[in-house]
Amino acid sequence: MNVKNNGRFTHYRTVSFAADHNEVVLIEQRLLPHQFKLIHTQHYRETAAAIRDMIVRGAGAIGATAAYGLAQGARAFKGAGLRPFEKHVAKVIKTLADARPTAVDPVNAMRDVVQSMRAGQTVAERQALALAAAEEFANEDVEHCTAIGRHGVKLIRNGMTVLTHCNAGWLAFVDVGSATAPIYAAQAKGRKFRVLCDETRPRCQGASLTAWELAQQGIDHRVIADNAAGHLMQRGEIDLVIVGSDRVLGRTGEVANKIGTYTKAVLAKRHKIPFYVAIPLSTIDWILRSGRAIPIEERDEREVLCAEGTLDHSQSGTRNRQSKRQVRVANPTSKALNPAFDVTPAELITGVITPSGIFKPGELWKNRKVLGFR
Amino acid sequence: MNVKNNGRFTHYRTVSFAADHNEVVLIEQRLLPHQFKLIHTQHYRETAAAIRDMIVRGAGAIGATAAYGLAQGARAFKGAGLRPFEKHVAKVIKTLADARPTAVDPVNAMRDVVQSMRAGQTVAERQALALAAAEEFANEDVEHCTAIGRHGVKLIRNGMTVLTHCNAGWLAFVDVGSATAPIYAAQAKGRKFRVLCDETRPRCQGASLTAWELAQQGIDHRVIADNAAGHLMQRGEIDLVIVGSDRVLGRTGEVANKIGTYTKAVLAKRHKIPFYVAIPLSTIDWILRSGRAIPIEERDEREVLCAEGTLDHSQSGTRNRQSKRQVRVANPTSKALNPAFDVTPAELITGVITPSGIFKPGELWKNRKVLGFR
Repeated sequence: MNVKNNGRFTHYRTVSFAADHNEVVLIEQRLLPHQFKLIHTQHYRETAAAIRDMIVRGAGAIGATAAYGLAQGARAFKGAGLRPFEKHVAKVIKTLADARPTAVDPVNAMRDVVQSMRAGQTVAERQALALAAAEEFANEDVEHCTAIGRHGVKLIRNGMTVLTHCNAGWLAFVDVGSATAPIYAAQAKGRKFRVLCDETRPRCQGASLTAWELAQQGIDHRVIADNAAGHLMQRGEIDLVIVGSDRVLGRTGEVANKIGTYTKAVLAKRHKIPFYVAIPLSTIDWILRSGRAIPIEERDEREVLCAEGTLDHSQSGTRNRQSKRQVRVANPTSKALNPAFDVTPAELITGVITPSGIFKPGELWKNRKVLGFR
Repeated sequence: MNVKNNGRFTHYRTVSFAADHNEVVLIEQRLLPHQFKLIHTQHYRETAAAIRDMIVRGAGAIGATAAYGLAQGARAFKGAGLRPFEKHVAKVIKTLADARPTAVDPVNAMRDVVQSMRAGQTVAERQALALAAAEEFANEDVEHCTAIGRHGVKLIRNGMTVLTHCNAGWLAFVDVGSATAPIYAAQAKGRKFRVLCDETRPRCQGASLTAWELAQQGIDHRVIADNAAGHLMQRGEIDLVIVGSDRVLGRTGEVANKIGTYTKAVLAKRHKIPFYVAIPLSTIDWILRSGRAIPIEERDEREVLCAEGTLDHSQSGTRNRQSKRQVRVANPTSKALNPAFDVTPAELITGVITPSGIFKPGELWKNRKVLGFR
């Protein structure tokens, strides 16, 4: 999507590839929203480190980064022997997969690339096929998000206020995003609407990343404390909720997403506000039979006890206003609980927006053929 | 309540009076939770400034501070002429009332003191009566909170987890607090339980003040993000919610309190978790006929866009780890909405814990005689 620089808009993808220099090009997300910077990795190990160190995050984005990283590693191989080449490729795959051992997207993305490479008879052919497959993976990610936007755009009408939680934007994918796809599509159609970004404590992805995305794109938006949406719904000031998801259970329609999503769904139900979940098909889990079986990651309590941001220029007394600092918000001798995700039952969800259309959460299983169940 | 210092507990009130030196003694709340410090004001203007600058905050606490400030001002008068004395007293009252012009508690507290003073025939008598009345006001505030604890303590049983929101603790009153009163009473009875403190963005009074209070008192507690309570309720990990209030409507049972309270009440209802509001009788508004008539203060958006705390020692590079700093959490070019309060309807509230007993919110009007309606 667009990034505004000195009043001009430039289009970027979160992840791309510079074939001439064999470089993976990434937006350095850890510096956002305070600084926009591209990182060019020159070696697959550097690409793996970028995944590990969360320079890039989000399911679609790390999938594409791993696919490009594999192509990068394959293309760096010197020689013509297929056996040493395949040995090298296996090492590249292991390095990239180990960067985020619990994430499934890099593994799935690299499986696609490996499958494509098999058609090549020579090292050179396989190297070319690897890059083509990585490009195809990235392009498909964009197409899927664009299709989500095409289906979801009809939900956003003139004058509406749309609430979103956390960041399921283009920074989490190669481009466009999932929850943001209908928003960007509605903007492209010239509709006038407003977006509220839940701050999304403890990591504040809504206040930082989603608000940054929307600001770059010139979309009218406001940040709110996670506490405020209930009051605003009560006063009739929210018309629609769209969130992303980390995992949607195909059998039950339950939705795992960033902590606080469940609360917003409960509030939306009470106020009869439509609540939608936007996802690519790869987010559907066809195996688990209950949301209770989804492991809820308990993250470092420091995320809750502290907050991260830049020192205010007016207060900092230094010229370096860009670097992030942590402040201890909570009482120094107190501890915290920090569950990072929650599970929203199907009854609270109006619809699941997918690249194949919008489905009731209870009807995913019935439509599993269309939704990519194998 | 207690403050722990070098392993020893010392008992403090939020507000007290040192008669020998004619000083109002206040806990400097702006430094909490990172530093505990007492302020001695030596002039009623300094006391007014302490109210204005929020060295002291909370309905009961600023009421008592104004009452003591009035006694302090009256006692500083030199001379025996009743007419110049009363003129002086009027100036003192105006100065203290103007410190927080929208707050009703200082005005009500000073009205009590003025009424008592009238019985005095000389300046000296009136000066003595002013101090006695201020002491009585402060002692009654403590008695009311203690009575809330006596009634509310039966709600907290062994093994329970109690959720609270914002700070309705002893720092907001002269001592004991309202929402915290049943908690402290249960501790005194030796019951074993745990308290969860909602962080309470944007000002984080839960993470800072309530967590500090509970830590000083040695009560088992954890801070949670405002997003987390829904998930914890869903998993059966919260048994009871107790909050304070800024205004309870005697006619409808509606409760105005810090933003986010309504959300917790909606969640508690869904999970059949008892939701109580603890208040002194002075919090009941017998006039307003609808919660829609309660003005909802929209505060500075910077509260949402930023977070305040101390720089981590490990990161600060300086010796001054106590002073608070603001960091910009949100995207620098984004704006925020910041409604500071919300209104919870009576149907979501299990009971209102008052010094006169626990009442269903819909039955306050029926019991108005007992509840101090005049």
